[in-house]
Amino acid sequence: MAQEASALGAERARRPSIEGEGPAGWLEEVRSEVDAHLACFFDDRRANASRLIGPSEHQSLLVDAIADLTMRGGKRLRPALLVAALAAVRPARSVRDVLAPCASLELLQSYLLIHDDWMDGDLERRGGPSVHARLREQQGESGDALAILAGDLGSAFAWELMLEAAWSSGRGRELTATFARIHQEVVLGQEMDLVGSIDVSRMHRLKTGSYTVAGPLRLGALLGDANDGQLRALERFGIPLGEAFQIRDDLLGTFGDVREVGKTIGGDLRVGKRTALVRELEESVSEPDRAPVVRVLGRAASEVEVEAARRALITTGVRARVEARLESLLDDACAALEGGELSEPGISMLAELAGALTFRRS
Amino acid sequence: MAQEASALGAERARRPSIEGEGPAGWLEEVRSEVDAHLACFFDDRRANASRLIGPSEHQSLLVDAIADLTMRGGKRLRPALLVAALAAVRPARSVRDVLAPCASLELLQSYLLIHDDWMDGDLERRGGPSVHARLREQQGESGDALAILAGDLGSAFAWELMLEAAWSSGRGRELTATFARIHQEVVLGQEMDLVGSIDVSRMHRLKTGSYTVAGPLRLGALLGDANDGQLRALERFGIPLGEAFQIRDDLLGTFGDVREVGKTIGGDLRVGKRTALVRELEESVSEPDRAPVVRVLGRAASEVEVEAARRALITTGVRARVEARLESLLDDACAALEGGELSEPGISMLAELAGALTFRRS
Repeated sequence: MAQEASALGAERARRPSIEGEGPAGWLEEVRSEVDAHLACFFDDRRANASRLIGPSEHQSLLVDAIADLTMRGGKRLRPALLVAALAAVRPARSVRDVLAPCASLELLQSYLLIHDDWMDGDLERRGGPSVHARLREQQGESGDALAILAGDLGSAFAWELMLEAAWSSGRGRELTATFARIHQEVVLGQEMDLVGSIDVSRMHRLKTGSYTVAGPLRLGALLGDANDGQLRALERFGIPLGEAFQIRDDLLGTFGDVREVGKTIGGDLRVGKRTALVRELEESVSEPDRAPVVRVLGRAASEVEVEAARRALITTGVRARVEARLESLLDDACAALEGGELSEPGISMLAELAGALTFRRS
Repeated sequence: MAQEASALGAERARRPSIEGEGPAGWLEEVRSEVDAHLACFFDDRRANASRLIGPSEHQSLLVDAIADLTMRGGKRLRPALLVAALAAVRPARSVRDVLAPCASLELLQSYLLIHDDWMDGDLERRGGPSVHARLREQQGESGDALAILAGDLGSAFAWELMLEAAWSSGRGRELTATFARIHQEVVLGQEMDLVGSIDVSRMHRLKTGSYTVAGPLRLGALLGDANDGQLRALERFGIPLGEAFQIRDDLLGTFGDVREVGKTIGGDLRVGKRTALVRELEESVSEPDRAPVVRVLGRAASEVEVEAARRALITTGVRARVEARLESLLDDACAALEGGELSEPGISMLAELAGALTFRRS
C-alpha cells in the first residue's frame, strides 16, 4: 500500500516547470524544514516513551525504529503537495505554518511502509533494513510482532500531529474527517490488492492515490481555508495525477534502471501483477502477439524470457500507448489547475510536483 | 495487550453494590444502547466500504471481520466506566449522550484484540475464531496480512468515532490528547511485555490499565466537563483499580475454573509469566518452599506438577496475601471516591464496576 517516489531527475522536460536540474528551492526548503520538525518530534517522543516505560528499559525500540525509518530518507513529496496546495489557495503561507500536518503525513507513510513491508516480506527499504527485518535482528522471533506494534505507534503519532493542526484550524473537523477517510481508503485499497480484485485502477486510487496525492492536496487546501471551487480544482488535478503516478510506477517496474529503481526490474511480470502494461496488452493486442508476455506472467521466468516480453511490449506499441496515457493524464491534471481558482505561485509549484511524481526514475 | 472481563457473577459480596445477582439495570442499558449504536455504525461502514471498493467485490472482508468480532460479545465494561465517570461529574447525563465515544472504546478494544491475538497466536476469542484464524480460513495465506489490516481499520474507526465526540465537546482537545495517549501507552506496554521487561506492574499499567480503566474514566470525566478535583479523584480511583483488575486476572489464570475462564488454567505458570503470585512468592517465601512452583515455571510441566505448584502457593500463604493485596487496592480505589467531589449516583456506579472488574470469575 505504500509507495515512494523521487523528486530527483526527469526523463523528459515537457513541462516547463521541470526543465531545471534537480529540485527547486522551495522543495529543498520543505524537505529541510520537515526533517527538522520530525527530528524534534522524535526527540520528544523518545523522552516521553522513556519516562513511560521507566528506568528498567533504556529506551523504546519502537520509537527508535520509527524514527530511524522516517529520518533515513524519503523525498517528503506528500508534505510538498500539501504545501503547494496551501500556496495555491493562500500564497502568503509557507511550510513553516504547517509543519505538524506535514510531519503527520510522513508518520502516516512510515506506519504504512512498516506494515506493508511486513505483509510483502520486503527486507529492504530506503537503503537499509525494513523495520521488521531490523527488529528480527535485534529481538529474534518477537521481531514481527514488534514491527506491527511499531506501525501501530506510527499511526498514533500521525494522529497526534494531525490533531495538533486540527485544533488550531478553523476547518479542523474537515481536516480530521479527511485524515480518517485517507486511513480507511488505504486499508481498503490494500484489501482489494490482497484479495486479487480485478478493478485495478480503483484499487490503486484507494491504496496509493488517496494518501499520496488526493489526501495531501485536500489537507493543504483545508489548512488554507479553501473555498469549494478551489477544493474541486485540486481534486480534478489530483485524481489523474494519482493515476499517472501509478502508471509511472508500472513503467519503472518493467523498464526502469535497476540501479535507480532499487528493486529487480521485471519482478512485476514474474509475479503476474496486473500493471497498466498488462491491461493495455489485453485490451489492444491479439492473442499470438501477446504470447511472449503471457509466457512470463506469474512465473519464475528466465532473464532471456523477461527480455523477450519487454521487447514484445515495445514492438506491439503497448509501452508507447501506456506512455501516451500517462502524458494525457498529466495534461488533464495540469488543465485542472487553470480554471482561475488557484494562485499563480501555487499552480507552478503543483505543476512542478506533477512532473516530479510522474517523470521520476526511481 | 488486550484483556476482557465479565460483569457477571461475583465471588464475594463485600461491596454492597455488588450484592445483587447479575448486572444492574444501568449496566444492561449501557450494553444494549452501545450494541445498537455499534450495529448502526457497522451498517454504515459496510455500505461505505462497498461504495469505495466498487461493484467488483461484494463487500469488505475487513469490515465484516471487525463487525463480527465486536458484536460477538464483550461486556462493554469500558463504556460502562466512561458512563459511570460521566455520571459522577454530571448526574443528569446518560449513555445516550455519549454513544460515539462508548462505541469508539469498543472499536479500540477490537483493534487491540485483533493485533494481540495474532501476536500471541491465539486462535479463539469470544467463543469463536480470532480474526486472523477466521481470515486464514477464508483467504488462506493472506489471512494474517488481512488480520493486521483489519486491526488497522478498527483503529481508524475508533478515531472516527472519538472525533465525532470531540468536535461536539467543549473539552475536545483534551479528549483527543487522552485518546492519543491511551494508544501510545498500550503499544509501549505491549513492547515492554514482548521484550520481557522486569517492571511488570508498570507494564500492566500501560498495557491494560490505561485503556481498560484510567482512559475510559478520564474520557467520561472530560465529556462531563469535569473540574481538576474530579479528574484527580477518578485518577486515584482508577490506578489501584487497574492493578486490582490485573491481579484478578493473574489469580484466575492459576486458580480459576476452566469452564468459566475459557482458557487452560496453569498456562501462566507453564509459560513462566511473572504474575502477582510469582512476584509475591519471590518476595516472601524461602527457597526450599518455593521449589514446587519454581519447578513448573516456564516448562511444559505435567498436570500433577502444576497441581503441586498450586498447593504450594496456597500452603505458603502466597495466594492469601495476593488476595489481601487485591482487597486493599480495592479499598484504596473506593476510598478515592469519597472526597466529596463526585456525585452519589456516580459513586455507586463506579463502586459496582470496581466489583465487576475484580470479583469476576472469567
